Formats: sequence, structure tokens, C-alpha cells
Amino acid sequence: MQPSGSSEPQFVSNDTVEGVNSAARERVLVTGGAGFIGSNLVDRLLALGHEVTVYDNLSTGQFGFLETASQSPRFQLVQSDLLDTHSLRRVMREQDLVFHLAANADVRFGIDHPARDLEQNTIATHNVLEAMRLASVQRIAFSSTGSVYGEPSVFPTPEGCPFPIQTSLYGASKIAAEALISAYAHGFGLQASIFRFVSILGERYSHGHVFDFLRKLTNDPTRLEILGNGKQRKSYLYVQDCIDAMLLAVSNAQDAVSIYNLGTNEYCTVNDSVGWICEALGVNPEREYTGGERGWIGDSPFIFLDCSRIRALGWQPRFSIRDGILSTLRYLQGAGWLLQARA
Amino acid sequence: MQPSGSSEPQFVSNDTVEGVNSAARERVLVTGGAGFIGSNLVDRLLALGHEVTVYDNLSTGQFGFLETASQSPRFQLVQSDLLDTHSLRRVMREQDLVFHLAANADVRFGIDHPARDLEQNTIATHNVLEAMRLASVQRIAFSSTGSVYGEPSVFPTPEGCPFPIQTSLYGASKIAAEALISAYAHGFGLQASIFRFVSILGERYSHGHVFDFLRKLTNDPTRLEILGNGKQRKSYLYVQDCIDAMLLAVSNAQDAVSIYNLGTNEYCTVNDSVGWICEALGVNPEREYTGGERGWIGDSPFIFLDCSRIRALGWQPRFSIRDGILSTLRYLQGAGWLLQARA
Repeated sequence: MQPSGSSEPQFVSNDTVEGVNSAARERVLVTGGAGFIGSNLVDRLLALGHEVTVYDNLSTGQFGFLETASQSPRFQLVQSDLLDTHSLRRVMREQDLVFHLAANADVRFGIDHPARDLEQNTIATHNVLEAMRLASVQRIAFSSTGSVYGEPSVFPTPEGCPFPIQTSLYGASKIAAEALISAYAHGFGLQASIFRFVSILGERYSHGHVFDFLRKLTNDPTRLEILGNGKQRKSYLYVQDCIDAMLLAVSNAQDAVSIYNLGTNEYCTVNDSVGWICEALGVNPEREYTGGERGWIGDSPFIFLDCSRIRALGWQPRFSIRDGILSTLRYLQGAGWLLQARA
Repeated sequence: MQPSGSSEPQFVSNDTVEGVNSAARERVLVTGGAGFIGSNLVDRLLALGHEVTVYDNLSTGQFGFLETASQSPRFQLVQSDLLDTHSLRRVMREQDLVFHLAANADVRFGIDHPARDLEQNTIATHNVLEAMRLASVQRIAFSSTGSVYGEPSVFPTPEGCPFPIQTSLYGASKIAAEALISAYAHGFGLQASIFRFVSILGERYSHGHVFDFLRKLTNDPTRLEILGNGKQRKSYLYVQDCIDAMLLAVSNAQDAVSIYNLGTNEYCTVNDSVGWICEALGVNPEREYTGGERGWIGDSPFIFLDCSRIRALGWQPRFSIRDGILSTLRYLQGAGWLLQARA
């Protein structure tokens, strides 16, 4: 946990979530552990008493996110890429559990870099699985995405909705990774927990619409460009709620493959979010819409996941979408360096 | 079409199937065009008047399958690998349409070669798509598989069945390829026809259960080892029926992505097939079952696809499963070189 007064997480885990396996100290590898979600997970795992190895190439991760973690004797950082299979296989030895969060996480720019999602998401996942197989590491938790539903026909969308058609290279790379993980689970006896996230918000958030809107409004509070028509309906989940859910699911894993949607029981429009952000900032910009139902190619105009499966384990989020957005905004306002670094 | 008396295809296309675009000669690239299905497709495309380029590394394809095709002035063979992007991009220029059939097509041995399906199916498909994008080739037909349904919960299984979980590396690599194709279609304006095949039978068939059983019974007609318990329920489609369906679908393509199951409206058990094969061969072996519901890891104990979507275009198969199996058997009995070559 962080010292009070910092802009870092001050979330205290509640007693319904005991973590990975609170009875035993485990050796946990977190790929992408210097990233937004990863570093929050690392802090939590350390607080629960585990040994944590972060594997991150720091391409988008921030060393600063690991400042607290790095003070723990149970923490180590390996700065390396998942495409470096030699390094990965060396690190994999002696691990009990892998949280595979490393990814190219930006769905928007897929078509500008058509090979990036394939390499960093699909092939990287294959490398993680091969390293696990060779080192006899049997448990994996994976951060997939609601984007694998493409443009769903059922809302809220359950995990077993009609077989979707992919609309983004990001979603394609993640469903490919899910498929590889499932095939390894069946072929080699791994146990996998796969999480299909909505967009995650909270401390250390460093890309997405709150980030973009704050940066734009900081530059010019009189106008705001909004991608699409503002009517896109989106879901968000607060990062600590997300971590609660992942730890709970992993500690309850029984089947070879368990797949969980992670989100709240609500959605908002982009316009709702703009309203909350502007109100909190005390600005009233002219809203300029780029138009169309989608903010970009592969953008899904409606994301709303049925999360009854994870709720059946006893989980529920404690932050509403609005609370999550406002908490993220406060964090970013205190983290000007981040806003600059990613500008 | 083949000369009469040969063991090569003697199938005459009927008038309900006019082919890719019978009004115009098109330049068609067939990856895997020296393979079982590919070479049959090539013969048909040439008969319809198209210009055909086969791109094949001849790893499992057979030059002999292209003997008739190679006599056409509208045919050329490029012996190269899809991982050779330079060669692929050169060949892609000036094509109108791609039939992407090249693949590691053997679902059984995935776990012995964990990277093979990823490389030859997923990455190779990405390379095809990138080459198409760079050369502004906009139409692709892709041979996917009913294996992407894993172990379905609905029979017959429609294209929009509940979102499946992959059970084989082969299925995983094919769903990854489907996803890439769909994402490219949405992101770059390609038009894609994706076919989820049951097992295909017929002339030039060179792996699968009819092949295995014939080889085993040729070696020893008194006993037959059968993988699994023999009760696995499987579907098969005759290769010329499969080609009819693909050409019909491609000529009717309107959406960015069209997905079709291809199979017959029936299934049989492995034991049924053993009975037909033994009767045709006049043998009565002791049946020795390896046991279990599945023949191998990732084998699906029941494959039966709902093909009403392709039937709605006016297609129907002309060969029953039994006819397809017996026709394949006759072909293989006349192609001892093939049985030897793949032993």
C-alpha cells in the first residue's frame, strides 16, 4: 500500500478477496508488470506476501510505476521483450503462476501498424506458453478484451454469445491469444483464467479517452474534439475492482479454461463522460464531433458485458463508471509528468 | 478436366455453379495449390478459363497433382513459402482474387510441434493479407475448419453458435487466421469468404482416416488399430462438392466478411466408415481400439455442421459420406505411389 497523500493507489483490499493463494507464498511472473494494470497488480501481489517478477520491455510501461514495488525484497524487474525467448525461458524457471498482461493495448492504431498486434499480442503469447511448457509452469491468467466480441448482437454480452466476427486487429490478436492459451490448456495440461476486460480506469491509467480529453482541455479549454458522434455507449471498470476480480477468479480456478467478462453492470455514452469531466474541470468547451457511429476503424459503438459469471464467485465492483472516471481524472491531474511523457 | 480412364478427377461441373466470375477471366492466386483441395480447385479454375498462379512450397503438395494444370498456358507454379514475404509480395501484384488454402492441415500432431500451426497458418495468413494490402488485391477466400468450434454444444453447429473454446493448436491457428482476415476486411476494405470445412475426401486425398486405414489394412488385413473407441461421430464432404460451394459463395460475395460451414447433412461414426472400407476391400480385420472418446488430444468426438447458409445460395452436395469414402478408397487404390510417398 502507498503512503497517504500520494497520488498512487490507496485502495485497501477487502476481506472477500484473499488473493492468489493467501495460504502460500507463490512465485508470480507478471508480464507487462510496469504498465497501468500490471503495476497495480504487482503492488497487490507484494502486499499479499508473494514473490513477484516483472517482465516488461518498458516500451509503454513506466519504471516510476514500480517505485514502491522495487523497495520490496520479494520484487524483481527483468527488462526484456517477450520476443526474446531466451530471456523469457530463463525467467520462467521457478515460477508458480503467470499473469500475462503485456500487450500492445491500443486498439485505435492497429491499421497503422498491421504487424504490431500479431507480434506483441499473438506471437508474444505463444512465446509465454512455450516458456511455460518448457519450464512446467502450469497456471496462467490472461488479460483479454471485450473487443473480441467485435460488434456484438446481444447486450449485455455474455461469454457464450454468438460466435463473433472480428472488426479490429487488436481484437483479432487477442482472440488468437485466447485460442492459443486454450489449446495449450487442453494439449499440455495448463490451467488458464482468461479475462475479457472493458476499458480499465484508475491510478496509472495512461491512455484512453480520459487521458485524451484532459490533455486536449488543458491545451484549450474552449473546445473539445470528440471522435465519432459522442453517442457511442461504453463500459469502464476501476483498476482495483479489476484486480479483485482477477485474483478471486485465479484462486477459484478449477477447469482447464475459465473465461470471465470483467465490467460493471452499467454503461455510459462518450457524451456522459465528457459532461462529467468538464464539470469536474469547471470548463464548458464547444464540442466538435468528428462524426459517425464509431470513433475509429474497429471501434465498437456499444460495449456492455454480462458479468454474471464473475459475480457468481462473489465479486462486485465498488466503483461506478462515473466514480472511476473522476478518480482517474484526479490521478492524472496530479501526474502531469505522465501527461507530458505520453504527449 | 482429366482424360477418361485416369484415377484423376472426372467430375463435371454442373450448370448451377458458374465459378468465380464466369463472365470475365480473372487472375487467381491459389496458395497451397499443389495440395489435395488446392490442385482440384486449380483444375476447375483453369477449366473455367481463369489465369491461375499456384504458390506452394511443396512441403505436402505434390507436383504430380498439377500435371494436367501445367499443360495450360494460363497456369504458373511459384515454388515458395508463405514465410518468404518478398517472394509472396512479388507474386501478389496483378492478382484479382486469392484462394488461401496453404496450411499445416494435420490437426493430430499439433502438440508435437507447438509452433508449426502458428507459423504456417496464422503468420502465413498475416503475410498473405499484408501482401494483398500492399498490392491492393481485395478479394480472398479462405479454408478454415470446423475445428474452430472446439467441442460444440449445439448440433448441427451453425456459424453463429455460442462462442467456442479452442481445444487444438490447429483450431487455434485457424480461428486466429479467420480473425486476421476479418480485421483486414474491416480495416482495409477487403472482401473475405471464409469456409469452415468438415474433413474433405476425394481424388488426391493424402492424409486422414481413409488413408490410414487403407495403409494399415494393406500391411495387415487381419487387424486394424482404431484411434479412440470408434464411436466418434464425424462429417465428410467430397472435394468437388466443396469446390462447387466455394466458387458459388465467392461469386455471390457481398458483405465484407461471409462465413460458411461446408459439409453434408449427415454424419457417420468411425465404425461406420471402417465397415464400408472393409466391405469394399473384402477384409474382416480384428478391430483394436486405443480407447477413449477422442482419437487424439484436440480431437472432437462429434462434428456435424449446420450448412443451411451455403444451401440457401442453391448449393447441395452430390456425394453422400459413404460415396465420398468409397470414391476416395478407389482413388487411393489406384495411387499406390501416394500411399508409399506419405508412409
